[in-house]
Amino acid sequence: MLKWMSTLSRPFAFAATGVLLAACAGTGAEMRGTGDLGIVVERATGSVLVVDHSEQKPLGRIEGLGDLSHASAVYSRDARYAYIFGRDGGLTKIDVLTRKIVKRVVQGGNSIGGAISQDGKLVAVSNYKPGGVKVFNSQTLDLVANLPATGVNGVASKTVGLVDAPGQRFVYSLYDANEIWIADLTNPASPRVQKFTDAGDKPYDALMSDDGRHYIAGLFGEDGLSLVDLWNPDKGVRRILGGYGRGEKQLPVYKMPHLEGWAIAGDLAFLPAIGHHEVLVVDRRDWKEVGRIPVHGQPVFAMAQPDGRQIWVNFALPHNDTVQVIDVQSLKIIKTLKPGKGVLHMEFTPRGEKVWMSVRDRDLVQIYDTITYEKVGEFPAIKPSGIFFTSRAHKIGL
Amino acid sequence: MLKWMSTLSRPFAFAATGVLLAACAGTGAEMRGTGDLGIVVERATGSVLVVDHSEQKPLGRIEGLGDLSHASAVYSRDARYAYIFGRDGGLTKIDVLTRKIVKRVVQGGNSIGGAISQDGKLVAVSNYKPGGVKVFNSQTLDLVANLPATGVNGVASKTVGLVDAPGQRFVYSLYDANEIWIADLTNPASPRVQKFTDAGDKPYDALMSDDGRHYIAGLFGEDGLSLVDLWNPDKGVRRILGGYGRGEKQLPVYKMPHLEGWAIAGDLAFLPAIGHHEVLVVDRRDWKEVGRIPVHGQPVFAMAQPDGRQIWVNFALPHNDTVQVIDVQSLKIIKTLKPGKGVLHMEFTPRGEKVWMSVRDRDLVQIYDTITYEKVGEFPAIKPSGIFFTSRAHKIGL
Repeated sequence: MLKWMSTLSRPFAFAATGVLLAACAGTGAEMRGTGDLGIVVERATGSVLVVDHSEQKPLGRIEGLGDLSHASAVYSRDARYAYIFGRDGGLTKIDVLTRKIVKRVVQGGNSIGGAISQDGKLVAVSNYKPGGVKVFNSQTLDLVANLPATGVNGVASKTVGLVDAPGQRFVYSLYDANEIWIADLTNPASPRVQKFTDAGDKPYDALMSDDGRHYIAGLFGEDGLSLVDLWNPDKGVRRILGGYGRGEKQLPVYKMPHLEGWAIAGDLAFLPAIGHHEVLVVDRRDWKEVGRIPVHGQPVFAMAQPDGRQIWVNFALPHNDTVQVIDVQSLKIIKTLKPGKGVLHMEFTPRGEKVWMSVRDRDLVQIYDTITYEKVGEFPAIKPSGIFFTSRAHKIGL
Repeated sequence: MLKWMSTLSRPFAFAATGVLLAACAGTGAEMRGTGDLGIVVERATGSVLVVDHSEQKPLGRIEGLGDLSHASAVYSRDARYAYIFGRDGGLTKIDVLTRKIVKRVVQGGNSIGGAISQDGKLVAVSNYKPGGVKVFNSQTLDLVANLPATGVNGVASKTVGLVDAPGQRFVYSLYDANEIWIADLTNPASPRVQKFTDAGDKPYDALMSDDGRHYIAGLFGEDGLSLVDLWNPDKGVRRILGGYGRGEKQLPVYKMPHLEGWAIAGDLAFLPAIGHHEVLVVDRRDWKEVGRIPVHGQPVFAMAQPDGRQIWVNFALPHNDTVQVIDVQSLKIIKTLKPGKGVLHMEFTPRGEKVWMSVRDRDLVQIYDTITYEKVGEFPAIKPSGIFFTSRAHKIGL
């Protein structure tokens, strides 16, 4: 493996499998549709693979993206450009057609995630240092608005759980100030910010329901979660699932589950229990827990297939070699897969016939059929983590 | 207007507005993303406009598509090719990048709609004459499977309400045989067909819920609708909404509403009442009617914004100059627009910030902001009808 790692350079070569994909040397500015493209983040090397999920193969590698720990990505509305949010404050715009970096700015000292506005014209980045949110023109990456996040407690807070909402809004949480803010960027020159104070102790991450209505923040400092109904913001923040992090026998938490790992399927939401070998089932009409499904380890992501028929779950160490599939109707585990150590992320093809998985410790991306559970493809990638397909361009609340 | 009509020829010219878009003469094979493209059907002239919903403008015209009455379209998984189903049995594959016809086959004598398989490899077309369903290779348009539709009553039936479902399945209704069939094309050489007989009198159209679970057929010969739960096909066909077409005072029906015009927003479904100036509200958990909203005329389409926040309704003659907007939370009409005579179809941008409308009798496509309801753009089109954006490539059940 060391040998393979050392061969990483242009031209793009997969020496590990003996397959030389020199034709994919990142220069191929091809005229083609972009609806079936995506990227795989290679965290350790600061690179991404551009992939094609029709052909189930990588097309080329883009290097020079900085520290991609916990990196995430959103897409331009034409599904051509990805905006990649690195941990080092880097915001990189890449072109998946030419497979080149279009522009890269280091916009903060330490950042965690971002979002793109409903109309696609603004990209917002959430910062740990110096805190706050910065908003950029998605075309040029010029700074459009700087939104510091100083709470009523006077602390300039780091921001987390940044997502887009309908109406050119961004919603985010202030970890150090215990607040949730909604910034309306309809007029970027004078953003209007609505603030919810007393939003719970240390919101550390959040998610938006897929219709852009319910914003839910996880709390590090207390049990339970905070919910804002964007259709009824006057109702303020509501505390839900008070027993979320509790349990008779608390286990050490190997990895705080990502809230983006929630799955919403019909009336039910599925979420990883904190520190327990369980997936919680919640009725999203009243946000009350209706069941717990025992699983193989501490779940990290519980992801719903696009048709809501099955939930795919991966796990924290020492169980991160395993993926389990839950049947939504029976709430039973119907399949256990062993892709190998370091299953970090999964992404479904847009209509759900396949699921892609990053298997970090094997330096592989694997592809499974969601009906037969057969492995139908795989290819090498260097310590792959997040997988993001261009169909995300058309989704709300990412 | 007559003058303008007579100028219809290449080079593509919009003489009506004095704007000559000669640069868009249909030759422009441009390298670009395809996530923000779409087509507008020009029914009377057998042509389509390729449009860009970021720039809010047409890019060029493709001619020679035959009879496009009631034409609909689906997209390849790369969002580059549209498959257009014409009334004359024509299946035309067009390339929205080069703006050319790739291939055209006349596959039946008289057809009505089609669908693309979950993996994007198969395109199915529903036929009136000679009946049945034909399935084509989406790459080549070669015939892959011919599925006649002869019911237990011995009649070779025309098929309607054809949609895709997860698992390489197509679902359709047999108008002349009162049946609903599910064809599994996992192995196209030997399709497996599951048949529901006694599926109601003359199913004339159908829709699939957006998760691909519930298939609902409208019935011409009796009141109510037929529902198949694809997660539980063993439960057979269930009759719902027995009073759907009834009412104290039946009005003449100017246009049978399309079932594709149903809107599903959260727990509620909104559907056009038949022959009444009402939109029905149905609880999708038990498929029972929970309310009726009085509207301006006989509704044709009731379409949910992508965020489920509002329902946009257009109407049959003599009220087809009007569009009304229903607020989903209050179930009240909050806006009435008058785009002009012949509002035939609406399409939302993928994340819902804008809605496009065909205003046939004014030869215009108009674009409205879904928050301010302001008209934010318009351009000429020749008797425009259906509008279909490439983001449909990623949806289930179309």
